[in-house]
Amino acid sequence: MPLNANNPSRQSWINVPENNDFPIQNIPFGVFLTRDDIITIGTRIGDTAIDLGALHQLGYFKGIDLTDDIFLQDSLNDFIADGRKTWRLVRNRISDIFLKGNHELQNNNVHCDKILFKMDEIEMQLPVDVGDYTDFYASKEHATNVGSLFRDPENALLPNWLHIPIGYHGRSSSIIPSGTPVHRPVGQTKPTEEGGKPGFGPSKALDFELEMAFITTDANDLGKRVKLEEAEDYIFGLVQFNDWSARDIQAWEYVPLGPFLGKSFASTISAWIVTLDALEPFRTDGPVQNPAPLTYLSQGGNMNFDIKLEVGIQPEGGEETVLAKSNFKYMYWSMAQQLTHHTLNGCNVRSGDMMGSGTISGPTKDSYGSMLELTWRGANPLTLKDGSERKFINDGDNVKMRAYCEKDGLRIGFGNCDGKVLPAVE
Amino acid sequence: MPLNANNPSRQSWINVPENNDFPIQNIPFGVFLTRDDIITIGTRIGDTAIDLGALHQLGYFKGIDLTDDIFLQDSLNDFIADGRKTWRLVRNRISDIFLKGNHELQNNNVHCDKILFKMDEIEMQLPVDVGDYTDFYASKEHATNVGSLFRDPENALLPNWLHIPIGYHGRSSSIIPSGTPVHRPVGQTKPTEEGGKPGFGPSKALDFELEMAFITTDANDLGKRVKLEEAEDYIFGLVQFNDWSARDIQAWEYVPLGPFLGKSFASTISAWIVTLDALEPFRTDGPVQNPAPLTYLSQGGNMNFDIKLEVGIQPEGGEETVLAKSNFKYMYWSMAQQLTHHTLNGCNVRSGDMMGSGTISGPTKDSYGSMLELTWRGANPLTLKDGSERKFINDGDNVKMRAYCEKDGLRIGFGNCDGKVLPAVE
Repeated sequence: MPLNANNPSRQSWINVPENNDFPIQNIPFGVFLTRDDIITIGTRIGDTAIDLGALHQLGYFKGIDLTDDIFLQDSLNDFIADGRKTWRLVRNRISDIFLKGNHELQNNNVHCDKILFKMDEIEMQLPVDVGDYTDFYASKEHATNVGSLFRDPENALLPNWLHIPIGYHGRSSSIIPSGTPVHRPVGQTKPTEEGGKPGFGPSKALDFELEMAFITTDANDLGKRVKLEEAEDYIFGLVQFNDWSARDIQAWEYVPLGPFLGKSFASTISAWIVTLDALEPFRTDGPVQNPAPLTYLSQGGNMNFDIKLEVGIQPEGGEETVLAKSNFKYMYWSMAQQLTHHTLNGCNVRSGDMMGSGTISGPTKDSYGSMLELTWRGANPLTLKDGSERKFINDGDNVKMRAYCEKDGLRIGFGNCDGKVLPAVE
Repeated sequence: MPLNANNPSRQSWINVPENNDFPIQNIPFGVFLTRDDIITIGTRIGDTAIDLGALHQLGYFKGIDLTDDIFLQDSLNDFIADGRKTWRLVRNRISDIFLKGNHELQNNNVHCDKILFKMDEIEMQLPVDVGDYTDFYASKEHATNVGSLFRDPENALLPNWLHIPIGYHGRSSSIIPSGTPVHRPVGQTKPTEEGGKPGFGPSKALDFELEMAFITTDANDLGKRVKLEEAEDYIFGLVQFNDWSARDIQAWEYVPLGPFLGKSFASTISAWIVTLDALEPFRTDGPVQNPAPLTYLSQGGNMNFDIKLEVGIQPEGGEETVLAKSNFKYMYWSMAQQLTHHTLNGCNVRSGDMMGSGTISGPTKDSYGSMLELTWRGANPLTLKDGSERKFINDGDNVKMRAYCEKDGLRIGFGNCDGKVLPAVE
């Protein structure tokens, strides 16, 4: 099936402001509450939200095999379970309906009134009901920085790192959509003297992690494996992801079983899922893998994606300072390798599962994806535009992430992935 | 509300064989397919399964505030979300309907035919749709054994262990009910020489972990905490749990982020959830906690439960050999402490979440809850009744676990928690 919808010359009859993340080539998927408080699955062109539930009810998806209520859901899980062929048919149809020159809907004011909303009239929700969430650790620069900070700069990477896409199971219940405030977590911290009583209270080392995450469809039954060459067929799309981390809580609790309460208080994702189809024009080679991975992880070609990443802090009542710029293409292990490895033991992957990249740090100091790395564990505080310093995140800070691709005048982006930090609850 | 249903002198008009896990004082909850292939929520007395969907439709729960379809579900999540007061009303009503001397249902053959099934006519399913599954590491004996084997017997417990109920996020998708076969997982293993290529193939160190797990109801919103004295209100009941582990895969992958594919290939639970109410007569003190935990984890009284645990291996075509007997009361950190700690950072706990105890080992060598400990990492193989030796689990072995309480002639048990190991899939 050709990806017509990606043609960069296509324009919509819906206005798309300059530098907007959502031209007609994007067609992301999300869930929102309409102005009438109805929950629906939708997409977006420019600053216009499109109610796919209404579009379907009014007959615009005729000829595509969809259940009547497929878009009248509070999550995308069922639609994602329909598989890649259906996603493409729906994507292409949406692209046609809103193409400049197609007046079928444009000239029907009654329909437009039921289908189109201004973004500020609606309320974005979590797009998927995440069954299982896994976070990988796939940026070599990040793993090297963390290894240098906490272990030995000469042997920063652990022996398994270059052979395995290292990952761990995360907490699904605390995944929240962009814009949801985050309470500073309370926790135990390392005793100040050996054998002493642990510390207790609000985290003093609250951090962000600049990540992307992909959302899967049903990939395999328990006991079966996904082959690398098929892995991308099971990836519906990506979200931007802030894997909030309380470094002091994490440092005390994480041996020997890994991160737990230092992470599970909140995980913010963008409200829009951008499909792998929309990202197709931005494919690029990943880093050279040396030593070569084992056969089941051996891949050819351009399995990475050139997605520019940014993170900034906007203090209470102030202006945002961009702290770092990175890129999703720095990921050492590709999404296809991650998903393939995840099923090597027969672990089943389901529709709506989410797999995070881990912090994506680049090669230079201004491309590190966490405060931990940017301030080198607090040794080099950052100065914001208002003159205030940060080793970690303060109460009242709004942490803002952006992710977008840009090439030949086409920009495909993810919208907001923001979260404001509120004081700890007593 | 008094727990009348616990009265040990109560007897049912349904026959209960000697040493059966399911007298009228148990009333566990599960999900099954009836002989007509209808999925329903049910309970069990003796070897008789009781269709609660049919019982409700026929009016036997009149006066209890239940939605019409509360038992016509493929999981207990919605019923569990109804909360403790509803669970108790339903439990007490069931106990009354099946009490010897109550002929209301017993004398109605038409109703009995719709409601009662022999256990071998039905097919048990997974009782809950587990949103998030956490596994703790709460047996001091187990943590000490593992620390002695892999680190230093003199400093076997890590510094955080006596202060924090250590836990990690597990994989929900691969939780399966008793009786489901388990394929030996394939994975990467440590290179035989430093810097060499990792091993690859079916695990050579497949193990069980003898655990219990509790199932929660909605406990707290994101950002809120559960207080210790309220924690048990949010525990619906317990299942027995085999946390299958591939020690060789785990050993290579687990630093620094914890267990991943060494665990996520299968997690077997008993098909019946035994409520905390049914276990009430078996409360007992837990081990003395020294040093005293921080205030938020400080508990008085008998927060542990005396549940006898057993695990055995039945080789293909042979007889079972019991390998170890342990007890849930050995758990250093109580379920209430685990749940309270889990929400300390504001992490929200939902209906259907599952929290495992970690391997429950006792103080003696015949009470260790894993092959790793029983054979001391393969150094002392076990001999089965058929004369064959085991360092770990062979293909064709059926690993059988049992859990039951016994006191004053009353036995409350969990039925089977079994899984047969099949060869790895190519």
